[in-house]
Amino acid sequence: MNFTGHGNKLIEERIIDFNDAKKLVMKLKKIPISSRVARECIDLAYGFFSPLHGFMNAKTLVSVCQEMKLLNGTLWPIPILLDMDKAIIDKNNLKIGEQVILSYQGQPLALLDIEEIYQYDKLKIAQEVLGTSEEQHPGVRMLKQWSDYFIAGPIHLLNQPRFQPPFDRFWYTPLQLRKIFAEKGWERVVAHQTRNVPHTGHEWLMKGAWFSTNGDLPVEKLKTGVLVSCIIGPKRVGDYIDEAILLGQQKLHDAKYFRNDIHMVSFVLWDMRYAGPKEALLHAIIRTNLGCTHHMFGRDHAGVGSYYDPYDAHRVFDKIPKGSLNIKPVRILEWWYCPVCGEVTYSGLCGHTKEKQPFSGSMIRSMIQDKVKPTKLIMRPEVFNSVMENADKYGFGSPFCTEEYLNRRQPVFELS
Amino acid sequence: MNFTGHGNKLIEERIIDFNDAKKLVMKLKKIPISSRVARECIDLAYGFFSPLHGFMNAKTLVSVCQEMKLLNGTLWPIPILLDMDKAIIDKNNLKIGEQVILSYQGQPLALLDIEEIYQYDKLKIAQEVLGTSEEQHPGVRMLKQWSDYFIAGPIHLLNQPRFQPPFDRFWYTPLQLRKIFAEKGWERVVAHQTRNVPHTGHEWLMKGAWFSTNGDLPVEKLKTGVLVSCIIGPKRVGDYIDEAILLGQQKLHDAKYFRNDIHMVSFVLWDMRYAGPKEALLHAIIRTNLGCTHHMFGRDHAGVGSYYDPYDAHRVFDKIPKGSLNIKPVRILEWWYCPVCGEVTYSGLCGHTKEKQPFSGSMIRSMIQDKVKPTKLIMRPEVFNSVMENADKYGFGSPFCTEEYLNRRQPVFELS
Repeated sequence: MNFTGHGNKLIEERIIDFNDAKKLVMKLKKIPISSRVARECIDLAYGFFSPLHGFMNAKTLVSVCQEMKLLNGTLWPIPILLDMDKAIIDKNNLKIGEQVILSYQGQPLALLDIEEIYQYDKLKIAQEVLGTSEEQHPGVRMLKQWSDYFIAGPIHLLNQPRFQPPFDRFWYTPLQLRKIFAEKGWERVVAHQTRNVPHTGHEWLMKGAWFSTNGDLPVEKLKTGVLVSCIIGPKRVGDYIDEAILLGQQKLHDAKYFRNDIHMVSFVLWDMRYAGPKEALLHAIIRTNLGCTHHMFGRDHAGVGSYYDPYDAHRVFDKIPKGSLNIKPVRILEWWYCPVCGEVTYSGLCGHTKEKQPFSGSMIRSMIQDKVKPTKLIMRPEVFNSVMENADKYGFGSPFCTEEYLNRRQPVFELS
Repeated sequence: MNFTGHGNKLIEERIIDFNDAKKLVMKLKKIPISSRVARECIDLAYGFFSPLHGFMNAKTLVSVCQEMKLLNGTLWPIPILLDMDKAIIDKNNLKIGEQVILSYQGQPLALLDIEEIYQYDKLKIAQEVLGTSEEQHPGVRMLKQWSDYFIAGPIHLLNQPRFQPPFDRFWYTPLQLRKIFAEKGWERVVAHQTRNVPHTGHEWLMKGAWFSTNGDLPVEKLKTGVLVSCIIGPKRVGDYIDEAILLGQQKLHDAKYFRNDIHMVSFVLWDMRYAGPKEALLHAIIRTNLGCTHHMFGRDHAGVGSYYDPYDAHRVFDKIPKGSLNIKPVRILEWWYCPVCGEVTYSGLCGHTKEKQPFSGSMIRSMIQDKVKPTKLIMRPEVFNSVMENADKYGFGSPFCTEEYLNRRQPVFELS
């Protein structure tokens, strides 16, 4: 596994002792934050964003937007920002040098040392980071919804989130994952990022990437793992429900489509920016911090519409300065079902380009919507059954997000 | 591809011009050689055994047997020897310093400059190279059949072999292969050694090894090839006939189970020693000379009985001095058919260890013997059909060597 985090820093946690936290909560101002900022406070405090300790100041923001690096030169592709309404700043009379409590859903979450309060053109961020300021780009829409002021400063967690079932089974901090990798003896770990219930194309993406990761190794004693690292963030109507994703991925493990000693499922809290190649770099950084040594990138990783070429997220790894990342990209083309071969196979290998049947996410979704079990060559029956069970258990009857789910679902985590 | 051969030598051919050869043939003694020695003359002359130029002398033999290296320190695991009957040496009054013609099947084949005539205990060679002198080991039996004297010296080819159909389609010298790899733009080439008609387990061995070879590459522009490198040498009753092997492998290409731009079939003349790990090293050396950058090694590569641990041929690559080979081993465990997964999958990945169905060569052979077409998940129908056709065309009705085939088959090559 990777012994240091990104920028060759050891992973540290920034958690304040319970009794100290109680005292701080009593005496400091409490400032409400959005769910995105809450997720990023948690990421910062546990080291998912190492070497960052807090939200970026204006100078760092400019450096990240324009040169894709932190002020010390460390690669960093996407700004991590705490946006704040002018009205809240004024009402609370927030000042540089002040310590405040960031609160979420009425509960204290983190301590912030205010270093700077500033403005920066959000559409300029969009243009520089996403390469567009068009409203159709969901990352642009997200930025537009942000408040107009930014507050910079280091944060500490005062209150550790309690993840609800089934999330609690899959929640691992970077330090916890590193400990588990060490216990498992995984010398290499390849990360698979996903927001999907797995079909066999996804399964073979992972299997192929595991092969690629092991290429030069004597494989008699297996010491390479696959870390499924789901992205849990905001949902939209029609997305798979989070519970179906996590538990569906876990089914590949429980039903032994993966050997249990080489595979585990986890998640990261993150609000997708759909920044294509730049987001691929950020995902690589987060998985470096988790202890992974390799990260797979398929077609159109973190892309949207036609804003990026499907293989921009492959090429970006050849464009960054050598040594700026401590994790190796495993770049994958397409796995498809080939009726001539009678199996799932790889675009780089199979010559039946006329007969091939590329996996169609929307086709599989419509089968699931109609409760039609796909052939096991397309989706494992255990995965399909689990999707159906979890639709009933968590999705108000639907495996896909409905308005009802978005309004009434169990929260992913709670604060006490 | 690999631009130099083994020991960082450029590949040279040692072929004598036709007119010069005619003159030499007129004036020199002609000494008959065995089919093995004829094959090794061809290998030496075309550079398959680079940097060797001829048959080994006593000092080199000792160094190879005891230290696994040539006198200049280059790794070399198996002696390459010209054995000769005392009666022939005496009858022809062979002398050190003399040039003679080695003739095969009544035709001149090669020019030999006699450097040394010596004896060496063949059972000692067996013990040192094969690790045993037991008669059950086929490499020991081969050695015992050799004559008791050895002649050392460089060779030149006087007479280039004409390969008969279908061998002519698959015969490439190291220089020819290197030219083809350059034309195809293959930056990496992974060799697959075989003496089998391919079942889908073999096919996935190759596909998995191709994946392993590409692990660190941006794979958008595919520049990695698979070279199927069949071993053509002595046959025994019950072996697949050579023609079925070559044409069966080619069927995977023609029927597009491999993309045509990443796969080709060839062969090497070689009499298997079944020397396990040491033979794996020799195979790696030969494929280095062919221009390959990677070589796959499965379970029990070149092993026999229980003389070697199934993974000795994996481990040996960690034991040789660093830098002594210019080719990378790709070490593979087992691909099996899994009825739960419904596909061919890999022992390193699939957890259905109770349900797995390992490929059984003897089961598939018995199906073929009975002309029962296996399911396409086990053997591609095009491959099966080709085996049946070639049984009729080349095998006197049988896809496996019979006494009739061994006695009456078309020779692999002829000399004029």
